Amino acid sequence: MATTGPKYHPVATGAATETVQQHQEPEDLTLWAGWFCPFTQRAWIALEEKSIPYKYIEVNPYLKDPGFLAISPKGLVPTLTLPDGRPVNDSLIICEYLEDAHPSSSPLLPKDPYERAQARTWIKHINEAVVPAFFRLLQAQPSEQDKQAKALAELNEALRTVCQKVKGPYFFGEEFGLVDVAIAPWAVRDFIVQEYRGFRRDDVPGWGSWAEALESRGSVARTTSEKERYVEFNQTFLKNEGHSMVGKAARSGRAIE
Amino acid sequence: MATTGPKYHPVATGAATETVQQHQEPEDLTLWAGWFCPFTQRAWIALEEKSIPYKYIEVNPYLKDPGFLAISPKGLVPTLTLPDGRPVNDSLIICEYLEDAHPSSSPLLPKDPYERAQARTWIKHINEAVVPAFFRLLQAQPSEQDKQAKALAELNEALRTVCQKVKGPYFFGEEFGLVDVAIAPWAVRDFIVQEYRGFRRDDVPGWGSWAEALESRGSVARTTSEKERYVEFNQTFLKNEGHSMVGKAARSGRAIE
Ligand SMILES: N[C@@H](CCC(=O)N[C@@H](CS)C(=O)NCC(=O)O)C(=O)O
Ligand SMILES: N[C@@H](CCC(=O)N[C@@H](CS)C(=O)NCC(=O)O)C(=O)O
Repeated sequence: MATTGPKYHPVATGAATETVQQHQEPEDLTLWAGWFCPFTQRAWIALEEKSIPYKYIEVNPYLKDPGFLAISPKGLVPTLTLPDGRPVNDSLIICEYLEDAHPSSSPLLPKDPYERAQARTWIKHINEAVVPAFFRLLQAQPSEQDKQAKALAELNEALRTVCQKVKGPYFFGEEFGLVDVAIAPWAVRDFIVQEYRGFRRDDVPGWGSWAEALESRGSVARTTSEKERYVEFNQTFLKNEGHSMVGKAARSGRAIE
Repeated sequence: MATTGPKYHPVATGAATETVQQHQEPEDLTLWAGWFCPFTQRAWIALEEKSIPYKYIEVNPYLKDPGFLAISPKGLVPTLTLPDGRPVNDSLIICEYLEDAHPSSSPLLPKDPYERAQARTWIKHINEAVVPAFFRLLQAQPSEQDKQAKALAELNEALRTVCQKVKGPYFFGEEFGLVDVAIAPWAVRDFIVQEYRGFRRDDVPGWGSWAEALESRGSVARTTSEKERYVEFNQTFLKNEGHSMVGKAARSGRAIE
């Protein structure tokens, strides 16, 4: 089970440094996090957005530390633990948990049942179409022109579909919500595929303005590290030597669990 | 786009016949359904469970009728439409919609936020591990012994993991809920892999009693057709000539969207 995993800077940098420092004291909720991890960032954004007190603990999930496996059976960040140590795994399940447990502080889901269903539909699309296409593109090597072109087209198409539904500045209009949370970490990271894989925001109508609104949202900005560190972490994928489950899933074409 | 798809009996049979007949009048909600489809059965069970009035319309989703594509962009059953025609797609999103819109009639999710997160965790496991393994096993031909053995082991393992968490008779104990809804259609259909693929309920501790409780639940029994008709429909998979997205997804190893 134990792998060394990718080599990367061990702690958050940039704006995220201060956020981490402000969350070192014990609190009812603990976020077991990877600063580099887009799924972690979703849960982190939700905590910040709802102003819920939490303690931040940086974990290297690739080490598969037995203590961490005890709270995260698949050894994945993010994991949230409750005061009695019971864990909640998976970024979106953590977000829904925070919403259920703290419904009144900055709700992330609309009240109307149909709009909630719409939110879930687009979150599912982000998870099943946008995110896998992003990882396929990241891992498509310059030597594999066809694969790269295909992944780029798929990412553009997946983004285009959801962008058509964005009211602006956020998904449902003025209210920042769970659809925004679900995609924001990829607004933060798309500069990598811009620099290395020919992705252009302008090729997807509406993505540029949505992505800018997301990146500059306080909760997103406060959980974002330095660009160079993201590039450094993603070298593993850029060079296609991924050790992670995300990497393996992307290569095999399977969804990430 | 248009395919003929698998040949199958056009309407529900067995106990489901009467349920269909009782739901022919216009109602606020319309279920666009395939009697044969396990995902349809989830939404159908939820409607029955919560005693919500609905009209049942049988659809052959493989025909990709333009009228149906207008409410279901991927051309998949189940789809639920509201009085003004707005659609909700995807079985679990439909179930959550019904729960949000009718929270007090037979709630399908626990009130406690942590238990809700547990429910979501196990529903995700059912979707990402149990269901794909079931379809892989269904499609693993007798000539492919290794593949069949592997798929069988994966199905057993995926079921074993969730069965360890079942309080009995239902997932959370006495209350029938969304985890039960999510897996019930496969309790109804596992006789096929028993007959054709060497699956045995006894190989998975706890599955036999859970599956029996699920099959005999009123809402499940009332939405179940004749066994021969399920076998007939699944010939496409048993002979590995699947035309459907489920079939293609299972063969490529991708999750079903
Ligand atoms: N579905 C999970 C995915 C989490 C995930 O893949 N996390 C990665 C880091 S970004 C991880 O922990 N990888 C460790 C590994 O693959 O061994 C979620 O949404 O939380
Ligand atoms: N994720 C969907 C899956 C629905 C689905 O795959 N339905 C199948 C029938 S069981 C379908 O409509 N297939 C038509 C096709 O593949 O063309 C859900 O949960 O509702």
